[in-house]
Amino acid sequence: MSDYPTVALIGSGRVANQMGPALESRGVEIKGVYGRNAAEAEKLALKLKTSVIDDLSEPIKADIILVMVSDDAIEGMLKDLHPDTKALVAHTSGSVSLDAIPNNFRRGVFYPLQSFSFDKKVVWENVPFCLEADNDEDLNILGRLAEAMSQRIHLLSSKQRQSLHLAAVFANNFANLMFEFSEDLLKKADIDRSILHPLILETANKILMQTAAEAQTGPATRGDLKTIEAHRRLLGEDNTYRRVYDMLTTEIYNRTHGQNI
Amino acid sequence: MSDYPTVALIGSGRVANQMGPALESRGVEIKGVYGRNAAEAEKLALKLKTSVIDDLSEPIKADIILVMVSDDAIEGMLKDLHPDTKALVAHTSGSVSLDAIPNNFRRGVFYPLQSFSFDKKVVWENVPFCLEADNDEDLNILGRLAEAMSQRIHLLSSKQRQSLHLAAVFANNFANLMFEFSEDLLKKADIDRSILHPLILETANKILMQTAAEAQTGPATRGDLKTIEAHRRLLGEDNTYRRVYDMLTTEIYNRTHGQNI
Repeated sequence: MSDYPTVALIGSGRVANQMGPALESRGVEIKGVYGRNAAEAEKLALKLKTSVIDDLSEPIKADIILVMVSDDAIEGMLKDLHPDTKALVAHTSGSVSLDAIPNNFRRGVFYPLQSFSFDKKVVWENVPFCLEADNDEDLNILGRLAEAMSQRIHLLSSKQRQSLHLAAVFANNFANLMFEFSEDLLKKADIDRSILHPLILETANKILMQTAAEAQTGPATRGDLKTIEAHRRLLGEDNTYRRVYDMLTTEIYNRTHGQNI
Repeated sequence: MSDYPTVALIGSGRVANQMGPALESRGVEIKGVYGRNAAEAEKLALKLKTSVIDDLSEPIKADIILVMVSDDAIEGMLKDLHPDTKALVAHTSGSVSLDAIPNNFRRGVFYPLQSFSFDKKVVWENVPFCLEADNDEDLNILGRLAEAMSQRIHLLSSKQRQSLHLAAVFANNFANLMFEFSEDLLKKADIDRSILHPLILETANKILMQTAAEAQTGPATRGDLKTIEAHRRLLGEDNTYRRVYDMLTTEIYNRTHGQNI
């Protein structure tokens, strides 16, 4: 018998399919799975050796109800929950406020800061969990569940979590778009994309040791206008690569040299 | 006695101070060091247990002369080389053409694709070396030198190398700027920047397994306009973060959905 809080899952999509089995494998008791897609819910419940919850309007018996549906669906889904639900109701979204959960429930947020793919195994030990609740007691219950997954636990307000989610778009989606641009340019020059992999790993590893501002290098940082001009000629006029190049080069130059390029 | 080509270094800056000792430690014989800054050249020569070259106008005796000065200084520096120089003259720049070396010399490029800092040790085994020369014999000599440093050896034309250098600006400097933006946003929200480190490492590691296009996630990829609107409100109007957010979000949306946002 584990000492973790028991959990019921609402949702049978990407997040539920990644986090559900991870919780179960760590000894968290899963009390049931509800999903609007009955077949998917059935499949996930089978995987978790638990039962399907057919009807949200019956009170769910668990310490925590984890709501793992898309951001837009959270509020609607919670309208169907029985008003006498005793469980702590926590969603797992980075961008949705705690207040999206009606305050007749005990409310919480259990947000794993991670980019989920269906096909890639998550190393949960490295994932920061961002927790929020209305009181210390409920925060403590979420903390005990998070400890089953990771040592990286952060207490953030809804406002902080929204800033974090936005910062993650820059650090993850936008950085990845830069990798995508670079792959496009390599493909055009008939160079295998793997040539940049060591540099990309180095770029990521560097900022574990120093701030990104300290780690910055390159022609704009050096003020090497000749190389910047050569890059612009190579990119040509009036295309996305050139517009992004100009905007970001100007920004790096300004940050380093304190004036416009 | 090693089987590597012997080398003379022109330059006593960042690249020479990183690559010189690495070559020496692998058993490459360093025939001498020339630097415009005499004190720096003396210091590097001492480190490499070799002599200072006082005068470029004397023919330098080595298999390869590695020119490791800033891009702008390469052509000027080579004007001073003795016209009867028998050594293969190779620069180490990503963005300078082979043709920057006068064609009365045997010409080469020996470009390590890496972002150099003074304070961070380079793991040379992971660094791709991009080689270019006028003929196979000289290419072979450069290849033997590169093998002392790394297993990742690429033969690229000047035009390809220029595209690679540009692609590296996107993958390294611009991705790092995205990390810098994210650190700014976290700081403003009073969140420690280390919270994003696992996600940044994950972002870099992902594209070793799949293309950046395949790896992309986030609100723009999902077409989650509600979250995008919330991010825009959080960023406010008319600032760099907002302009970059809008441009890159539009680009990701277009790539995924084939239409403007």
